[in-house]
Amino acid sequence: MKKVVLSMLTTAVLVSGLSADATKGGDNLIKKAKDAGLVAIPSEKKEVEKLVDNPKNKLNRAKIDLGLMLYFEPRLSKSGLISCNTCHNLATGGVDGVPAAIGHKWTANPHHLNSPTVYNAVFMKKQFWDGRAADLEEQAQGPLQAAPEMAISKEMAVERIASMPEYKELFKKAFGDDKITFERIADAIAAFERTLVTPSPFDAYLNGDEKALTWSEKEGLKTFIDKGCVSCHNGVGLGGTMQPFPAVKPYKYANVGDFKGDKNGMVKTPTLRNILRTAPYFHNGAVWDIKEAVKIMGETQLGVELSEKEVNAIVKFFGALNGHLPVIVYPTLPASTLKTPKPDAN
Amino acid sequence: MKKVVLSMLTTAVLVSGLSADATKGGDNLIKKAKDAGLVAIPSEKKEVEKLVDNPKNKLNRAKIDLGLMLYFEPRLSKSGLISCNTCHNLATGGVDGVPAAIGHKWTANPHHLNSPTVYNAVFMKKQFWDGRAADLEEQAQGPLQAAPEMAISKEMAVERIASMPEYKELFKKAFGDDKITFERIADAIAAFERTLVTPSPFDAYLNGDEKALTWSEKEGLKTFIDKGCVSCHNGVGLGGTMQPFPAVKPYKYANVGDFKGDKNGMVKTPTLRNILRTAPYFHNGAVWDIKEAVKIMGETQLGVELSEKEVNAIVKFFGALNGHLPVIVYPTLPASTLKTPKPDAN
Repeated sequence: MKKVVLSMLTTAVLVSGLSADATKGGDNLIKKAKDAGLVAIPSEKKEVEKLVDNPKNKLNRAKIDLGLMLYFEPRLSKSGLISCNTCHNLATGGVDGVPAAIGHKWTANPHHLNSPTVYNAVFMKKQFWDGRAADLEEQAQGPLQAAPEMAISKEMAVERIASMPEYKELFKKAFGDDKITFERIADAIAAFERTLVTPSPFDAYLNGDEKALTWSEKEGLKTFIDKGCVSCHNGVGLGGTMQPFPAVKPYKYANVGDFKGDKNGMVKTPTLRNILRTAPYFHNGAVWDIKEAVKIMGETQLGVELSEKEVNAIVKFFGALNGHLPVIVYPTLPASTLKTPKPDAN
Repeated sequence: MKKVVLSMLTTAVLVSGLSADATKGGDNLIKKAKDAGLVAIPSEKKEVEKLVDNPKNKLNRAKIDLGLMLYFEPRLSKSGLISCNTCHNLATGGVDGVPAAIGHKWTANPHHLNSPTVYNAVFMKKQFWDGRAADLEEQAQGPLQAAPEMAISKEMAVERIASMPEYKELFKKAFGDDKITFERIADAIAAFERTLVTPSPFDAYLNGDEKALTWSEKEGLKTFIDKGCVSCHNGVGLGGTMQPFPAVKPYKYANVGDFKGDKNGMVKTPTLRNILRTAPYFHNGAVWDIKEAVKIMGETQLGVELSEKEVNAIVKFFGALNGHLPVIVYPTLPASTLKTPKPDAN
């Protein structure tokens, strides 16, 4: 009855078999991109696993499989109806596709914050829009407890999961003993999330396959670098660091919600990986059109007015950031028992 | 990027390779069960496919794969947040595990009706608790439009799906041309649902493998037949026909909600397949303990007080109705486009 992720990082491996001998080539743009701080997802499975691992929450297959179950586990919400996947839906780019997240009792995020994608979230240097969590393990504890999200208490989360004998067994496999704690629940979820990386044509290109990008995608990449987008959207995550926002000019939709960043006004730079799948954009989800989003970023962050042509080129490049998504086998979750605390929709 | 159900009826086939030569055996109980109207899910894949097909909505692989996507498609709800899978969650027995369904704007079902499982729903002679839909194709149109469920209009559903070019392609494969209609959306969903059958040890037993049931499960089956449960819970669905409820004595939780059945007071008999995975029980989800549910059914429907021993035996038998669930690869859904009508949470 149990179903598991087909392989720890199945897709990561499948992807970059494109061509490895291209590093010899004379494509200056690859060097330029790397010099600008862009980093590929490695083509070797082992390297990816090393990159996404957390010394404080070592990955193992059992933990990842358990994490997948808990990621889809609606009984981790007070109502029994909301799972991590509700707002970070793996079917729709790792997001919910609405401007501001909606959770327990149909409550919208009080600051009108948009759900960031879980795909490649492992590459973010900080988690949450204000960067208040250091890693996915810490992040996962937040939405579970937040009143407008899953609204469950630590105690209730543990009591629910511990009431199902199958879970005890799975925790034992994942952690060495069958102790179920709130932290372990979050750790298992985070372990699963760490595997949600999506290698793309852009990675194949940076890894040396000059043919992985079309001519217009390369043009876009050049523009992306030359205009300075890369100064924040860099690293393997093409984002993920805390940056001032807005930096130069006001953000025209600043009045949607009341989010102003962390105490220094810094906001986490979102990843651009799969950006064409994760509308609407910005921390408050105020913009649906990726072209408008790029234009706005030019103004607010770089103080430049990007031409239609430049915007189009950059968006072409974004197409090359659509990654191969891992294959997820939808889990079968244990049946509730008479000991399982009842769902509470209020 | 597209992912599909591994095989039209993968699990159905895998399951009943248990042993086919047992029909020779002298197990009278098999004959008794068949004489009482119990019917197995066939062991041959082709027979299952014939059994679940609908002449008015012929199954094909492309339609089933499309249906799987639409089943998980939250943009088929007004809010963009609720899919068929929200209330009929394939991870949790095909149900939501709450007493009364909760949908758009966190609205509870106005009649306090419990979501029936989608697994084996194809075997029900009628759909909905009051039997108002003839088949899954007709049923699927209901929750999509119902205000307290997915709350979308036919027009909006079509506009949303038709706004994504990938869907056009998939409709063409499924239906022969790329016309997207509300009826076709429902038909594809129903086609997928028709594959959600879960062969169990009970089926292997009825198909001749005497060892497929334990001694106590056989005892339970005997009790189930002798006490008369089988008079309503029969056929391949172990339920699915319209029956008077309550028939003999009042239902002690009748005051939870206001559902009274169809115009003749008839209520659809729920399937007992996977019943141990689908608490809470009854049309109004008022009972969490399967033993209490069995006791109540004895009283209300058969006018008998079942002993503790009889109840336990029947529940043991229910264990043999836990079926093998089909393997579902979680779909990747097309990205919204600028033409896609926006989600509306209000």
